[in-house]
Amino acid sequence: MAETLKVAVAGLGTVGAGVVSLLARQAGLIAQRSGRPILVTAVSARDRDRKRDCDIGSIAWFDDAVTMASQADCDVVVELIGGSEGTAKAVCEAALKAGRHVVTANKALIAIHGTELAKLAEEHGSALNFEAAVAGGIPIIKALREGLAGNQIESVQGILNGTCNYILSTMRDTGRAYEEVLQEAQELGYAESDPTFDVEGIDAAHKLAILATLAFGRAVDFDGVYIEGISRIAAVDIDFAEELGFRVKLLGMASADSEGVMQRVHPVLVPANAPIARVEGVFNAVVTQADPVGTTVLEGRGAGAGPTASAVISDIMDIAAGRFGPTFGVPVANLLPSASHPIERREGAYYVRLRVIDKPGVIAGVTAALRDEHVSMESIIQRGRDPNEPVDVVLTLHETTEAAMKRALGRIEELSAVIEPPHVIRIER
Amino acid sequence: MAETLKVAVAGLGTVGAGVVSLLARQAGLIAQRSGRPILVTAVSARDRDRKRDCDIGSIAWFDDAVTMASQADCDVVVELIGGSEGTAKAVCEAALKAGRHVVTANKALIAIHGTELAKLAEEHGSALNFEAAVAGGIPIIKALREGLAGNQIESVQGILNGTCNYILSTMRDTGRAYEEVLQEAQELGYAESDPTFDVEGIDAAHKLAILATLAFGRAVDFDGVYIEGISRIAAVDIDFAEELGFRVKLLGMASADSEGVMQRVHPVLVPANAPIARVEGVFNAVVTQADPVGTTVLEGRGAGAGPTASAVISDIMDIAAGRFGPTFGVPVANLLPSASHPIERREGAYYVRLRVIDKPGVIAGVTAALRDEHVSMESIIQRGRDPNEPVDVVLTLHETTEAAMKRALGRIEELSAVIEPPHVIRIER
Repeated sequence: MAETLKVAVAGLGTVGAGVVSLLARQAGLIAQRSGRPILVTAVSARDRDRKRDCDIGSIAWFDDAVTMASQADCDVVVELIGGSEGTAKAVCEAALKAGRHVVTANKALIAIHGTELAKLAEEHGSALNFEAAVAGGIPIIKALREGLAGNQIESVQGILNGTCNYILSTMRDTGRAYEEVLQEAQELGYAESDPTFDVEGIDAAHKLAILATLAFGRAVDFDGVYIEGISRIAAVDIDFAEELGFRVKLLGMASADSEGVMQRVHPVLVPANAPIARVEGVFNAVVTQADPVGTTVLEGRGAGAGPTASAVISDIMDIAAGRFGPTFGVPVANLLPSASHPIERREGAYYVRLRVIDKPGVIAGVTAALRDEHVSMESIIQRGRDPNEPVDVVLTLHETTEAAMKRALGRIEELSAVIEPPHVIRIER
Repeated sequence: MAETLKVAVAGLGTVGAGVVSLLARQAGLIAQRSGRPILVTAVSARDRDRKRDCDIGSIAWFDDAVTMASQADCDVVVELIGGSEGTAKAVCEAALKAGRHVVTANKALIAIHGTELAKLAEEHGSALNFEAAVAGGIPIIKALREGLAGNQIESVQGILNGTCNYILSTMRDTGRAYEEVLQEAQELGYAESDPTFDVEGIDAAHKLAILATLAFGRAVDFDGVYIEGISRIAAVDIDFAEELGFRVKLLGMASADSEGVMQRVHPVLVPANAPIARVEGVFNAVVTQADPVGTTVLEGRGAGAGPTASAVISDIMDIAAGRFGPTFGVPVANLLPSASHPIERREGAYYVRLRVIDKPGVIAGVTAALRDEHVSMESIIQRGRDPNEPVDVVLTLHETTEAAMKRALGRIEELSAVIEPPHVIRIER
């Protein structure tokens, strides 16, 4: 058997500790499948004495992760610190410059600095692997980069954030309000104390930008992702969606045409019987449309120590076995320039909820505004009556452009009976 | 860019023609992602002049595929002839012995001769890749061999035969009988004129034996697979299943304990809301339970020229990029001996349909037989009444052993009112 692959781990939170303990616990299996033993030779974290679910007694300790990355006795540096800047980035750069391979679970880092890091890896003949950055334990990076490599990928869409999916699933199951469910998710550890990255769609957008790069061979373009989170979704929207035969999901979606890529993360209504509608709770799923393979769906746990450690270790094992190539499947020089379409290019159907004063003539005003912008209405629902009080009126619009929809809603918002900006959710069938 | 990878293709049916034309059509994309061009330099098929969806005008022709495998100017031989013996096997052996890599879509060959072929590949330092052999375009082989390589796999189960799934889905949708739906599937090209391999579960068993080898690191043991097809499933079983909250599916299932592996292919009742219950028509899906990743589900088209060509080409591209190792993930010498448990070791719940003469005392006789074998009944349904005429009585049994279930049904079969051998379908929750 070939010589031992030596691994340094930067960051020993739950994932880092999971990686260290799993490499020890399944050492025999991992050595067999990699063709060589894999050994953790160095670790670095903020606090050496913190209690952890792994034994680091016999492993070299570094107070400074960047020093470890360049100086430890290792072949691979695993970056599990997180964040797109600061130490995480410095660790990866130092490791690559020192000719080490890098494995990271850091979606923000790859989404924002992926192209430059891939270039650095290429210059030093190193691997830069990031399976754990997207959809936890689901091997979607490998599937796009290798398993579906003979295909022209047409679109990728997915449930990429378990926190949002848990909140939306729970709102539907319990009928409770967003704020209340978010608070419970925080208590259960499914949401961070500052949930902004998750609930505002930023985390999903990081992941989507990475998927789009692999799928379409364009330089990573996080800034080109249109992003809208779930914090404006009300319990009443979930109810109306249900009544109309839909579920509300936060999807990341990327599709390509000859001019560029549309990348977007926002809440959508999907038909209740669509495969993606049934992905519930903390699960993630990615649906790929490609020629000639057709539709493929990969589903699994999107986060947590176990799934993330599984992905990190498969990346390390690929390096051990010599199975690696360009970071994004093609050399950086061959990545097309990023060219992201604005959301205004979207065409599709829309769900619109209006908060209006219940009085005669409101509906006539709304339908006139739609007519004037040549937007065609599919259905309208007003549940209950409450003269001269605020009520919800829900419209669904037939396929139209985002721009026409916005013009029509601009007119509607000016109607005196309309007392809040319209609530819009895009419909994806 | 490195030098061209030369490919010889044996067999030019729809899949072979699909591979040849796709390699030409997406040559640029494929060269970029593989790091080198891939070119078909030789082909062989039964009839040179048959009309095909690919241009073979400029490609060397061989009347004899085995001669091509050893003598053509190529690095990789793609075997798309099919069948576990004869030419297909001879082509793979000749190619490996000549130091060429082999890519095949042939599940029967790998299921029956996989271990010896893997040994041959190892001796000659060649790749033997077979992504297309299981679940069409779904990259499940790569997922088990690489993507989930850091995991201890606990079980794999899947819908592995699109023909059976199409027949069962259509029986449910239309209420029609098995024979009628089979005939229609044959007319639509979803089933062969001799459908035995598909409907009797043999094709699914080939695929399951391959998955079990990858998952559990044991030598391929097709003979150890318990196999039961769908030809005894009646429309009335589908109806009763529905009434009880289940769907009927043909599943391949493999699980491991310290002593060996249970491999089985048979119809099952699965809860209607289980993810696998919703995989309809010609789609395939594979569900893996593993530590630490948890549950993952991979779903997609299980057959057809496009999905199969996609898998074949990803195998060729892995070879082009130098991404290959032992055939089954570990060296053949490290595969554990195959040790398959008999179906009698199964423990679980059961659906039993009895054809009985409707007269007083029948149910009492049945329940006494169950009591005498300590088998506990969960429910019993007799729809309608028809004194002294044959009627269906359906029981569901609580968790018990296969052996106890069989003893109880032996007693029941001896009751004078029971006029057919009991129809049993295992329940998997």
